[in-house]
Amino acid sequence: MDNSEKEILMELLRGCIAEKKVKMLREVFDEYNVVDMSELVAELSVEEALFVFKTLKKEVSSEIFSYLSHEKQESLIELLTGPEIQSILNNLYSDDIVDFIEEMPANLVEHILKSASQSQREEINRLLSYEANSAGSIMSIDFVQLKEKDTVSEAIEKVRKQGKVAETISYCYITDSKKKLKGYLPFRSLLYAQNDDIIEDIMDTDLIFVRTSDDQEIAAQQIQKYDITAIPVVNDEDCLVGIITVDDILDVINEEATEDIQLMNAITPIEDTYMETGVIKMYKSRIIWLLILMISATFTGQIMAHYEEVLSQYVILSVFIPMLMDAAGNAGNQASTMIIRALAMGELKPKHILSVWWKEIRIAFLCGLTMGAVNLVRILIFMHQVDMKTSLIVSLTVFVTVCLAKMVGSTLPIVAVKLKQDPAVMAGPLITTIVDALALITYFMLVTKLLIPFL
Amino acid sequence: MDNSEKEILMELLRGCIAEKKVKMLREVFDEYNVVDMSELVAELSVEEALFVFKTLKKEVSSEIFSYLSHEKQESLIELLTGPEIQSILNNLYSDDIVDFIEEMPANLVEHILKSASQSQREEINRLLSYEANSAGSIMSIDFVQLKEKDTVSEAIEKVRKQGKVAETISYCYITDSKKKLKGYLPFRSLLYAQNDDIIEDIMDTDLIFVRTSDDQEIAAQQIQKYDITAIPVVNDEDCLVGIITVDDILDVINEEATEDIQLMNAITPIEDTYMETGVIKMYKSRIIWLLILMISATFTGQIMAHYEEVLSQYVILSVFIPMLMDAAGNAGNQASTMIIRALAMGELKPKHILSVWWKEIRIAFLCGLTMGAVNLVRILIFMHQVDMKTSLIVSLTVFVTVCLAKMVGSTLPIVAVKLKQDPAVMAGPLITTIVDALALITYFMLVTKLLIPFL
Repeated sequence: MDNSEKEILMELLRGCIAEKKVKMLREVFDEYNVVDMSELVAELSVEEALFVFKTLKKEVSSEIFSYLSHEKQESLIELLTGPEIQSILNNLYSDDIVDFIEEMPANLVEHILKSASQSQREEINRLLSYEANSAGSIMSIDFVQLKEKDTVSEAIEKVRKQGKVAETISYCYITDSKKKLKGYLPFRSLLYAQNDDIIEDIMDTDLIFVRTSDDQEIAAQQIQKYDITAIPVVNDEDCLVGIITVDDILDVINEEATEDIQLMNAITPIEDTYMETGVIKMYKSRIIWLLILMISATFTGQIMAHYEEVLSQYVILSVFIPMLMDAAGNAGNQASTMIIRALAMGELKPKHILSVWWKEIRIAFLCGLTMGAVNLVRILIFMHQVDMKTSLIVSLTVFVTVCLAKMVGSTLPIVAVKLKQDPAVMAGPLITTIVDALALITYFMLVTKLLIPFL
Repeated sequence: MDNSEKEILMELLRGCIAEKKVKMLREVFDEYNVVDMSELVAELSVEEALFVFKTLKKEVSSEIFSYLSHEKQESLIELLTGPEIQSILNNLYSDDIVDFIEEMPANLVEHILKSASQSQREEINRLLSYEANSAGSIMSIDFVQLKEKDTVSEAIEKVRKQGKVAETISYCYITDSKKKLKGYLPFRSLLYAQNDDIIEDIMDTDLIFVRTSDDQEIAAQQIQKYDITAIPVVNDEDCLVGIITVDDILDVINEEATEDIQLMNAITPIEDTYMETGVIKMYKSRIIWLLILMISATFTGQIMAHYEEVLSQYVILSVFIPMLMDAAGNAGNQASTMIIRALAMGELKPKHILSVWWKEIRIAFLCGLTMGAVNLVRILIFMHQVDMKTSLIVSLTVFVTVCLAKMVGSTLPIVAVKLKQDPAVMAGPLITTIVDALALITYFMLVTKLLIPFL
């Protein structure tokens, strides 16, 4: 739907609401995609949205509700009556219920739980008790469950019944009388089986599953590795308690990538979107690393102070400091970026450290050599005030620091994993500070040992 | 499957191969998950793998083949006969065929195409002709297709037939006699319909689709936005030519995140994994930006050279340069990181630039103020050789550069989008160089205007 289509529809929507054209309103919502319509509802006033909610079929308004922002959900919940809330709860998947309740203020959670039925309340409380970012916290309890002794025709009948509320029917899960997970069956297989085949005989038993306490990342990795669209979740007693579907995994993958990107750039991760996050929260997520990195720069300051005399005699030397620091920082970041990402994607394991070193040494040598040479040419062309000896020393420093930076950049993330730390947080922001110090030390050592004695 | 399980299975596998225990080999492969088994096959020698291939049922060996690395695929293809290759092609999904052919050297592509049937050859050539990273290049042509006038029972029969080769049966697509896409139907709806219902009456017509020429990212965005597990792909005549399933979208999302992370850290994107990429390719992907950034550092060198006299008189001033540059770089990177990611996730549009500025100004003010204050304390505690006036000027510089860096960092990515450039490439690596120069200029201006006249 493009913007002009949206505007026309919005006008129609507002007209229907103003003139209370109930039938037409329902028809519009039937005709268009619910995701697109929820974008329009998000732009309505709370009163208008409330009218829409009370007018539409419960299934439709519940689905729309699940696509609204947390703020909008909050203001609607405040105005809805108990029975209305209950009917929304009835029509939402369990993971969507948990999703929106988690973001509500305490008084509204109470209002919601009061409106829920006894069994709903127990279920919600149980789901809310799983740790954040665990498989349990993102799973849905709406899935298709079969028994080993079911015949195919009984199974199809069960799918038909349970499928009305299940998040997916692509996989059916087979459990025993104690709810222990015994096998699974792609629904597709039911299509090709004989009506009197027994599920036990045709089900797959090479089970792929996660536990409620596993990190959501593990669920994401399994789903990607095995090319499946849903994964069962079992509790400590191996009983099937839920499933995680691939649409939730898409969110997990995006979240994890965002988190890594933020950590690598010295930001304490924020889960909300940029626009939703307030200034104070944003400030807090940034200031911590800025301060840590500024204070650790005391170290580079002390290196500079240590060589104050050299600098005061040969001021021209300070001209190259920004370039050397940037070159080292960039070279180190490149190496750490490649390693951090490869670790995150599971392509690389800490045991590969030797082959990483061997690869990075060769890359570093080539990069250092090229940069040293280009730097020499650059100085000779653009900076006539610099003599040949100094130019050579600066280029040598470029070569050495690029090599050092690449080694540090590729080693730190792997060390972080060995220390059971997140490589992105350990390695990302700290690399620049470390290689800056290395660049300065190298520079001043080469200058005092190789240059000054011969000037 | 854990490592010890894997080792035992590997031994069993090698035993079966050495003693040519065909039946047992087949049973092992039937018992375990094909993804796990393909990991084991990847570790076999080519001769062993070849024996496995010739022994297993064609469906199984084809599936195993699709999970092997490109190198392994290449060495196997070289040894397989024409009919064997054809049977692999028959049993692979079209997107997997294209995937592996794209990576083969020209002589092997010829070998493969010669082994393919006439219709296969035409199909492969057509799929190979789509531009890299377009929706056409990742789509599969194996989907379930119905006609508007089909009854539900006819439709179920068609699903049963076409479903054997289709990538997914979760959605059926309805086309007219000219293959134009008219609607879609979740398979689940067929379960609840009456046998003599007409498809036309029950299908959904709010079509979500992409075109073959659209970027794969658009397919990823649509699938995420509308929470669907497959999206149809149409050509310029609106005819249905393929579908993209969510498992391929998982790869796209990971690829795009990796690409952004690499671009933001001054690396020309590499699609292969870290271990698969050779030293020369890695060198090429890194050296370009290193050189660009080093040469652009000539600019910061010139600023330093311009104030050479000031630096030679007050050497202590140079001690703060590394810290100022790092603080500016970090502050700028934080802002650009948040904006680049929000743009990539579609949470932020260039039209939001004013609210971004208003938010960043306030964050910058808070961060700058905190850092300026902490810096003052830091100097007073750790650096007794620095006088109060200089400390104040340095802290003022921290405040101003942090503010400038945040504004530049948040503006550049948005400008990049307006110029139809990738924000990650325009903004990421360049930000540090730009804010470094800004930090130096600010520092020397404040020093010459506010400090030196009063010393």
